[in-house]
Amino acid sequence: MGEDDAGDIIEHHVEEEMEKRGTRSHAASSSFPASPPDGEGPSSTQSSHRLLAYSDALISIIATVMILPVAHTKVQDDEELRESVQLLLTTKIGVYLMTFLIVNVAWAAHIRLFQVVVRIDDCLALLNLACMMLITFLPYTFSLMATFPQNILGILLFCGCVMVTGVIQSLIVLYAFSRPFLLNEHIQISENRSVYKHHILKVIVRVPLMCFLASIASLIVFQLSYALLALVIFLPYISQFLKWCRSKALGQREESPDAVMFYTYLPNEPLSKDRVEAFSDGVYAIVATLLILDICEDNVPDPAVVEARFGGDLIAALRVYGPEYLAYFGSFATVGLLWFTHHSLFLHVTRATRLMGLLNTFSLAFVGGLPLAYQLTHEFPPNSQNELEAIQISCVIIFFAGTFQLCIWVVALFSEREALHPYVRYGGREHVLMLAKLALYPCVALGTFLLTCVLSRFSAPIFHLMEITVPFAFLLLRLLVRLVAAVVRLAVCPDRSDPTAVDEQQEATVPFSAAEAQRGC
Amino acid sequence: MGEDDAGDIIEHHVEEEMEKRGTRSHAASSSFPASPPDGEGPSSTQSSHRLLAYSDALISIIATVMILPVAHTKVQDDEELRESVQLLLTTKIGVYLMTFLIVNVAWAAHIRLFQVVVRIDDCLALLNLACMMLITFLPYTFSLMATFPQNILGILLFCGCVMVTGVIQSLIVLYAFSRPFLLNEHIQISENRSVYKHHILKVIVRVPLMCFLASIASLIVFQLSYALLALVIFLPYISQFLKWCRSKALGQREESPDAVMFYTYLPNEPLSKDRVEAFSDGVYAIVATLLILDICEDNVPDPAVVEARFGGDLIAALRVYGPEYLAYFGSFATVGLLWFTHHSLFLHVTRATRLMGLLNTFSLAFVGGLPLAYQLTHEFPPNSQNELEAIQISCVIIFFAGTFQLCIWVVALFSEREALHPYVRYGGREHVLMLAKLALYPCVALGTFLLTCVLSRFSAPIFHLMEITVPFAFLLLRLLVRLVAAVVRLAVCPDRSDPTAVDEQQEATVPFSAAEAQRGC
Repeated sequence: MGEDDAGDIIEHHVEEEMEKRGTRSHAASSSFPASPPDGEGPSSTQSSHRLLAYSDALISIIATVMILPVAHTKVQDDEELRESVQLLLTTKIGVYLMTFLIVNVAWAAHIRLFQVVVRIDDCLALLNLACMMLITFLPYTFSLMATFPQNILGILLFCGCVMVTGVIQSLIVLYAFSRPFLLNEHIQISENRSVYKHHILKVIVRVPLMCFLASIASLIVFQLSYALLALVIFLPYISQFLKWCRSKALGQREESPDAVMFYTYLPNEPLSKDRVEAFSDGVYAIVATLLILDICEDNVPDPAVVEARFGGDLIAALRVYGPEYLAYFGSFATVGLLWFTHHSLFLHVTRATRLMGLLNTFSLAFVGGLPLAYQLTHEFPPNSQNELEAIQISCVIIFFAGTFQLCIWVVALFSEREALHPYVRYGGREHVLMLAKLALYPCVALGTFLLTCVLSRFSAPIFHLMEITVPFAFLLLRLLVRLVAAVVRLAVCPDRSDPTAVDEQQEATVPFSAAEAQRGC
Repeated sequence: MGEDDAGDIIEHHVEEEMEKRGTRSHAASSSFPASPPDGEGPSSTQSSHRLLAYSDALISIIATVMILPVAHTKVQDDEELRESVQLLLTTKIGVYLMTFLIVNVAWAAHIRLFQVVVRIDDCLALLNLACMMLITFLPYTFSLMATFPQNILGILLFCGCVMVTGVIQSLIVLYAFSRPFLLNEHIQISENRSVYKHHILKVIVRVPLMCFLASIASLIVFQLSYALLALVIFLPYISQFLKWCRSKALGQREESPDAVMFYTYLPNEPLSKDRVEAFSDGVYAIVATLLILDICEDNVPDPAVVEARFGGDLIAALRVYGPEYLAYFGSFATVGLLWFTHHSLFLHVTRATRLMGLLNTFSLAFVGGLPLAYQLTHEFPPNSQNELEAIQISCVIIFFAGTFQLCIWVVALFSEREALHPYVRYGGREHVLMLAKLALYPCVALGTFLLTCVLSRFSAPIFHLMEITVPFAFLLLRLLVRLVAAVVRLAVCPDRSDPTAVDEQQEATVPFSAAEAQRGC
């Protein structure tokens, strides 16, 4: 029976995939009123899958790149310098977080666009590459703004990039609507296609228009332009979130025809799950390898130095870098395991929404800071206050990275019928295991944090012990969960200790079976 | 009709996808003689797709990372220093190319392994992460070897990593064969499963065993260990290539039952096309953003310096970096367009082989050097000998990167019935366009190279003109090809100038229709 279940999981994915691809192929072979104008025809049309994967890879690299200036700020163990360094560090961390956020907004816009335009041709591929080039330039304009807040050049460059990106995106929309076989089937068969076109164009053009105003405002009062920029980026989200809250509170307009509309900015607007996964994979992969990049470049000693200072003893020379290798393996393992929980989570999520995407972004932003926190833990003398702080910062970062993943699951549980696979829904067979997987890192991080507060002298050993035990905890998690569940059941209802009965209860997939079982117990 | 064709293309992909996934889901639901031993069952089994995508991302980053030490070597315009810098640069480029090759060998082994193990569970995912951690450490051991060729530490570390990786891979194989529902369907239904197991284990264990010998040899005569390492990495390929050549030459053993065997090292052994694409996407994405990483980190001027040296004029301060922005946009566009041709190529390739993978690796290795070559073109004074050399090196790199892509297509054409979509086969409708796309960069690079040899004084303007015109050439390529084809046809058979007839000829999809049309003309 278990084997059939596994088949179901996979088949479910296959069906999903088929549905997705099926609609596209169906859309392609149905006839259209408007034939392509220049006789080229759709012979050159392609599935957009790989173009989007490449865009995701580019955007994930760009989102995480601003952590490098933070990484390469030398923190000295000197009280006098500390404050100025802390200010610099805070600025750089601010730039990193803002870049991460803004690139994510651009990425969300890109997803939205290519949920409407589901197939591409050579022309769209080239336009998209131009778009990517401008997006990858955004972090630089942003760091100019942060370094020279009084100078309007950063704002002008930023606005320029956004405006040109907006123009290119409008071109993509116009091009796609002139060749309807490139569009989403829903829009393709819709009678009021031009309504969609105008709505989408209006949403897209709004951003460059506001940026144009901001750049004019910056020529007069530059503070005003910052306010305008913040407005343009966050207003649609905030206003729609408020609308959504109001409609939820008043209970009206549920399942209105608007629900199928694109570009709604609603928190439950669907987001392409494939792309959320691809983007997350990119970020995790870059972050996991950040430290090895530095090690490969900086930690190969100069042969002359080894000869002079260590008498040609390479091992002694490399021992100096020991802590950095440790930091590398520690951060790789932690990032890898956080990827693993993310992977497990999205394996059981059947539909991603905008809100889940936002929580995922927050989680990823913390993951991005992880390698640096790990690196800091080894940079200070043992038992110093700095070392303790670095270890505690690491714990805090791990805690939040894990907690936001947990939040995604909680959000998915709220609409479990649409968003989750039956096996992990509340009371499902994998429900407890999933919860344990997602809760492991936040719990361990919190425990380590509290322990280091109490036993501050042993903070480093505690932290290293945590690093070593967590991977094994993941390996044995299934057994541990069974053990705990069995103990709990034994403690609560000692009369029903037959393990097969317990297994049968676990096998139940109906959401409320667990509650029923409890009542029965 | 054209629309139906497009539908066919997509449907073809869907069928392929379905076939792939279908076999997996079928495999999952069929019954097995050996039930899982510990009662866990396959309820935790998952499709390996995302694990492989993440591994591809990690490996592609690691493969390209050793270009960074090359990038950050300061090349001075000073004849005295030049030779020592050139030596250093040559060493670093050598390390980059060797790392790229070795990581690609590791990646090919990973593909081979996960073509046998097609589904994973949590335990395999964690083992794979451990494997990845060791692979990402390889470049560092390699650069230790290059810096201290006389010291055996680099070899020992390298051998240690490879041995542990081999042990983990053997564990993965043993684990997967103990739970047959994780295996490839072909092996799963095969009666002599244990033969496969022993063959695969033998191939996997061979490498760590040779590394063990190499590490023992290094304790005695260290030169011997280098020879052993080279042997272990390249011997299977060379010996199998010779065998293949012999069998081709003698015409025997064609389509032997060995053909379905895994781990054959034959040049026509199938390679997962998805993974070749994912890996290439990763490399292209990293390479495209390499320069912006440097720009974001280094090219934000210090406010104090701007105040002191430029009187607070930020634009004047940034003008110093002008050439670096140009280099960024130039290299991003070139890498993006090379990605575009790669994308077009693999869109029409239906099956990737080991030989195509090897050519792809060579192409990617050249792509990796591109941003640095571009950066060099702007680092020297105008009209200097160095500038000319840098521009010519860029042309050579672009030429080889494009030419190896062209080679992939030529290889695919040799077995076009299995490897290519009908539309691009010889004489197919898209055949000429595909050829034009792939030939554009090699031709342009060759032309620019020759022009700079003749008109060395105008090398920089010629190069910049090339950078600007190529993207437009790609946009207009379809029109250009039609124009050239029409002109050629007019010149060859001026009596049949009816454009619709020409179009009909182009529409023909039977491979030899073009030859027939020529005969008819």
